[in-house]
Amino acid sequence: MTPSQPGNPRVRLGDLGVPSGMFARGTLNAITDVPGIRIGHASLHDDGLNTGVTAIVPDALDGRRRSLPAGLSVGNGYGKLVGATQLQELGALETPILLTSTLSVFRVADAFLGHLLATPAHAETTTLNPVVGETNDGFLSDIRRRAVGAAQVDHALRSAATGPVAEGCVGAGAGTVALGYKGGIGTASRVLHVGGTRRTVGAIVQTNFSGTLRIAGVPLPAEELLAQDPAAPVGNSCMIVVATDAAVDGRQLGRVANRAVFAMRGVGADYAQGSGDYAIAFSVHDPADGGPVAEEALSPLFAATMDAVEEALVNSVLTAQTTEGPEGRIAHAIPIDVVRTRLAAAGVI
Amino acid sequence: MTPSQPGNPRVRLGDLGVPSGMFARGTLNAITDVPGIRIGHASLHDDGLNTGVTAIVPDALDGRRRSLPAGLSVGNGYGKLVGATQLQELGALETPILLTSTLSVFRVADAFLGHLLATPAHAETTTLNPVVGETNDGFLSDIRRRAVGAAQVDHALRSAATGPVAEGCVGAGAGTVALGYKGGIGTASRVLHVGGTRRTVGAIVQTNFSGTLRIAGVPLPAEELLAQDPAAPVGNSCMIVVATDAAVDGRQLGRVANRAVFAMRGVGADYAQGSGDYAIAFSVHDPADGGPVAEEALSPLFAATMDAVEEALVNSVLTAQTTEGPEGRIAHAIPIDVVRTRLAAAGVI
Amino acid sequence: MTPSQPGNPRVRLGDLGVPSGMFARGTLNAITDVPGIRIGHASLHDDGLNTGVTAIVPDALDGRRRSLPAGLSVGNGYGKLVGATQLQELGALETPILLTSTLSVFRVADAFLGHLLATPAHAETTTLNPVVGETNDGFLSDIRRRAVGAAQVDHALRSAATGPVAEGCVGAGAGTVALGYKGGIGTASRVLHVGGTRRTVGAIVQTNFSGTLRIAGVPLPAEELLAQDPAAPVGNSCMIVVATDAAVDGRQLGRVANRAVFAMRGVGADYAQGSGDYAIAFSVHDPADGGPVAEEALSPLFAATMDAVEEALVNSVLTAQTTEGPEGRIAHAIPIDVVRTRLAAAGVI
Amino acid sequence: MTPSQPGNPRVRLGDLGVPSGMFARGTLNAITDVPGIRIGHASLHDDGLNTGVTAIVPDALDGRRRSLPAGLSVGNGYGKLVGATQLQELGALETPILLTSTLSVFRVADAFLGHLLATPAHAETTTLNPVVGETNDGFLSDIRRRAVGAAQVDHALRSAATGPVAEGCVGAGAGTVALGYKGGIGTASRVLHVGGTRRTVGAIVQTNFSGTLRIAGVPLPAEELLAQDPAAPVGNSCMIVVATDAAVDGRQLGRVANRAVFAMRGVGADYAQGSGDYAIAFSVHDPADGGPVAEEALSPLFAATMDAVEEALVNSVLTAQTTEGPEGRIAHAIPIDVVRTRLAAAGVI
Repeated sequence: MTPSQPGNPRVRLGDLGVPSGMFARGTLNAITDVPGIRIGHASLHDDGLNTGVTAIVPDALDGRRRSLPAGLSVGNGYGKLVGATQLQELGALETPILLTSTLSVFRVADAFLGHLLATPAHAETTTLNPVVGETNDGFLSDIRRRAVGAAQVDHALRSAATGPVAEGCVGAGAGTVALGYKGGIGTASRVLHVGGTRRTVGAIVQTNFSGTLRIAGVPLPAEELLAQDPAAPVGNSCMIVVATDAAVDGRQLGRVANRAVFAMRGVGADYAQGSGDYAIAFSVHDPADGGPVAEEALSPLFAATMDAVEEALVNSVLTAQTTEGPEGRIAHAIPIDVVRTRLAAAGVI
Repeated sequence: MTPSQPGNPRVRLGDLGVPSGMFARGTLNAITDVPGIRIGHASLHDDGLNTGVTAIVPDALDGRRRSLPAGLSVGNGYGKLVGATQLQELGALETPILLTSTLSVFRVADAFLGHLLATPAHAETTTLNPVVGETNDGFLSDIRRRAVGAAQVDHALRSAATGPVAEGCVGAGAGTVALGYKGGIGTASRVLHVGGTRRTVGAIVQTNFSGTLRIAGVPLPAEELLAQDPAAPVGNSCMIVVATDAAVDGRQLGRVANRAVFAMRGVGADYAQGSGDYAIAFSVHDPADGGPVAEEALSPLFAATMDAVEEALVNSVLTAQTTEGPEGRIAHAIPIDVVRTRLAAAGVI
Repeated sequence: MTPSQPGNPRVRLGDLGVPSGMFARGTLNAITDVPGIRIGHASLHDDGLNTGVTAIVPDALDGRRRSLPAGLSVGNGYGKLVGATQLQELGALETPILLTSTLSVFRVADAFLGHLLATPAHAETTTLNPVVGETNDGFLSDIRRRAVGAAQVDHALRSAATGPVAEGCVGAGAGTVALGYKGGIGTASRVLHVGGTRRTVGAIVQTNFSGTLRIAGVPLPAEELLAQDPAAPVGNSCMIVVATDAAVDGRQLGRVANRAVFAMRGVGADYAQGSGDYAIAFSVHDPADGGPVAEEALSPLFAATMDAVEEALVNSVLTAQTTEGPEGRIAHAIPIDVVRTRLAAAGVI
Repeated sequence: MTPSQPGNPRVRLGDLGVPSGMFARGTLNAITDVPGIRIGHASLHDDGLNTGVTAIVPDALDGRRRSLPAGLSVGNGYGKLVGATQLQELGALETPILLTSTLSVFRVADAFLGHLLATPAHAETTTLNPVVGETNDGFLSDIRRRAVGAAQVDHALRSAATGPVAEGCVGAGAGTVALGYKGGIGTASRVLHVGGTRRTVGAIVQTNFSGTLRIAGVPLPAEELLAQDPAAPVGNSCMIVVATDAAVDGRQLGRVANRAVFAMRGVGADYAQGSGDYAIAFSVHDPADGGPVAEEALSPLFAATMDAVEEALVNSVLTAQTTEGPEGRIAHAIPIDVVRTRLAAAGVI
């Protein structure tokens, strides 16, 4: 799924041989391992633009159910997340989730709303709470053009598919930078037991934050690994979306979402004051089928969530390619060979 | 300022002779009594549409200052308020505040952002947190047309003025209903001393909520006062904006905003589960000029805020005229003569 | 249940003939109408002391269940509520709730914990989250003596009973003042349908806040009704506990608790900055028996909660007797005859 | 400062030669590097008991000032933190902070209150918000005896001193376990510039949480490093206190406190569901002397806070000694020699 670049073939963390930790990776090691989750991207790469939309689509909202249990964690609220207060009040997600570029977030939300209102499920709808996250891709994209709109929204939603997920410089990650490197979209998953039932938790992230990368604890500072200046995001941020099929309710998913934010520290985030760091967690489990699980059953879900989020964050960097933006600004891909060498030296692989 | 209707001249609460309570009303008894606050409206009344935009514009944000101290209270988060998390994280308001119709909120936010980015103050801006509130005017307006856009946003912003404020069926209040009657926009203000300094607090509201109206404690149920069926809002809500020139910081303004939400109960709100009840409070006082005041100085500000909000809520109903929406739905103006009679009988006037 | 005072027989709101509003009162019009709720008081009235403890005891926690779904609303956090963060995190109440005097709250919590650890249900317990609220009865009691302790805690818990509930100057209300009058403990209940099932919601309050009393909207200012100076609470506050048997979860009960705080405005609270205004709502319904109800079913529960809380607040004042504290400070009972006259004049009764 | 153990001399992270990162350590590398901060401990080690109290005392509250700006982060609210809601509402700390054992927290709070009321500064005080945190030392101490009381509180407060801080098995850390090892009290500090002024930030922690230890990214799992079974805390938790002399207000300190919780992930915390993970941050800077700093100045303070917290967490483990509790339960000290070997192998030292 990952586009290649001469001399610098992109990989995922698992490809490097880094073990998954306490829980096994899912089949695809992607959020699409969670039943009924589809991912779609629309990317805009042209003169001065590296931007796009990524759609996380739970099939259950395609007419069958009006909402899914959901929780939100606002790690650092310096962002323009659309849909926050209603999601928290009701503990519910009413629509797919879109990720995009900061200054396009409202036109994306408006186009998204138009798209949804045109579907049979919403033929009579007069109120709806679309959820759209963003990070600022202004380092690599002419953000003031606000180029993302209805065409990209429609494409991302219509092309959303199960199966492997494109990562790196794609969709909402086309123009983001993370930890001094080119960042982007990453995903990962874990399989675990929650309250005695086998479940999956998956994460997808849009990385655009500062700090010093660590993989499995091994520091990989951009200042050292790159021959050139590290990329500095304009208004750094991170959007994290976690999906599971565990039988958890909205309040419990708020607790899951908190852990997703905490996991950023595991890969070296510095949670700078201008960063919009948010996690949304939702479950595709239908409460009508039982639940929620006892609170005591949540610790493994918390642990697996953090592992999946950390791997998704790392994957976003490992799979991203060197990208040039306006005015000669460049975010470099992390050099995979150096990563491999350092991880081997540290005994991680 | 209030358009008239044959046989039912609209009034404000003060016109009825209801005293102001512990604090005096400001000169205009409007949020524009707070120095540097301008209000603008754009209204859409045509075939099946009664909707619009209302703009609350603090002059201080016209280039001189980057943000004002601000706080948010989410009384009931069933709404689509744009800008919530960043306002709370930073305790700051970066832009004017717009109010509009639920399904238009994102296109209004997008147009607003475009408007702001085109101003000299934002010539280089790559991140900005516009604040746009909404209530659902779908009872009196074809909300799915999402008719409010850039033209209305520009008009509301450009026409924003000091002086008396149009109330009732205007701007974002064109199509809202409250407490069984036609609601809309209302405003009021109070003058007080905060920490020994004479200050003003003003409120402006967009009313669209259910319950049983009380004025000065006197119940005025729509079921009794109207010959016809009371209006039932589609997704009821209330947006409250409070401005002051008191020397308060973001955290303290959060406390002010809480009181603004509490005040809704004073006029009979029932805070129904589907209601998006929010208050935003901001101060035009420049922290560089001193402050914040000691916490002990806040109680009078809290009391004056509640009085101003309650009067603004009542004014929105008293000044609104009977309005017909799609499919013959009608929201009736409260009959002023009956109000007057009942208030007199209760000894309030 | 109410102790009498010569020439000023105490009454409850219903005794005055004020109708209950949209929902019927429960049999006892008390929180004990909710199945399995018992109330106990321990009062200390002696030289300079008017203080005590009130216990709200859900039978379900006597060994059968480890916790009940619960929510908390912090209307104004100027208080020392014990147990707040864990109740919110887990949406659960693990113990009965005690109310007491500010400076005694920790020794009451400690004694309470000792009491609980000595019960068979907690023979092995090594962590437990007791919930103890407080208001400041320092106007009528020598609060610095911190006179409430294990003896009062044990008495309140052991004497807790179903049936009618003593109100006014009793338990945690022995020394509190409200709205210029002697306040204290009050209770009320409503019967309603939630999601098609007949349910009860009950409230019990400890009133100690400032403002101007309104009953059914009719203003009854202490400055007018009393020949003497109104009482001024030292650090005013209000603790509200709401119980129901509706099938609601912790998040939904947080929404219920919010409404309980909002209801304070309905009786004239001014939410002064130094007030600790909290509401805790819990359900005795066992989630194992189904639920939670759909969000849409909550509006009647919200409305009934506000009605019950408002009536409980009023009852705390109507049933309280003139009380003298240290240094000649006196809080006067509201004169019932004047209340009756004014309510009749306003057509309320 | 650290008591020694034959064959296992305890060290601090700096002693091992691990560099401090972006910011220099303070002179003592302790929270006492922040001007006017004193630390005191009272420890109880006897038959079946390993428990105690740790006091963090800002001199400024000894009569000169009534409160300090403060913020709270509730990472996971499964704890009994006393003083939470008022600290958040007012953004203020009114008293020193005590840390202790879960089931003793209320009697410690009560004794603390008694201690404070007996001081001249509180001769007239009738309301006060003591702040007392706790973690559960029940693995190594007979927690149900609730052995910590007035004697320990007085000792900790009276012995509080500037200068080096005792770490490890002392005070509130006497009986806690962390990351499979014996944990306890740890401290560290960093020197930085905030808004152009040289400032210090210091942290002190009480560690009692689960997870897999990482030092400078190097995994040091108790399962590998110990010949025996790792210790399992009963109800794991972490209390973090951050002090600074930077000119920040309560809201900004809430943002600082959030980062302190995030930092736990940097050393391998798993934030288990039963963990009470809290951070309190306060400033000794007097707002009367100017401030707060601009929001943009906060990122270095955030970064330095996370570094100090991570090092304090690690120090709590490195300095703690093997401790035996009731029923033969043992928490083993981390073997320093193995730590040294592994850090050297990884190139960290």
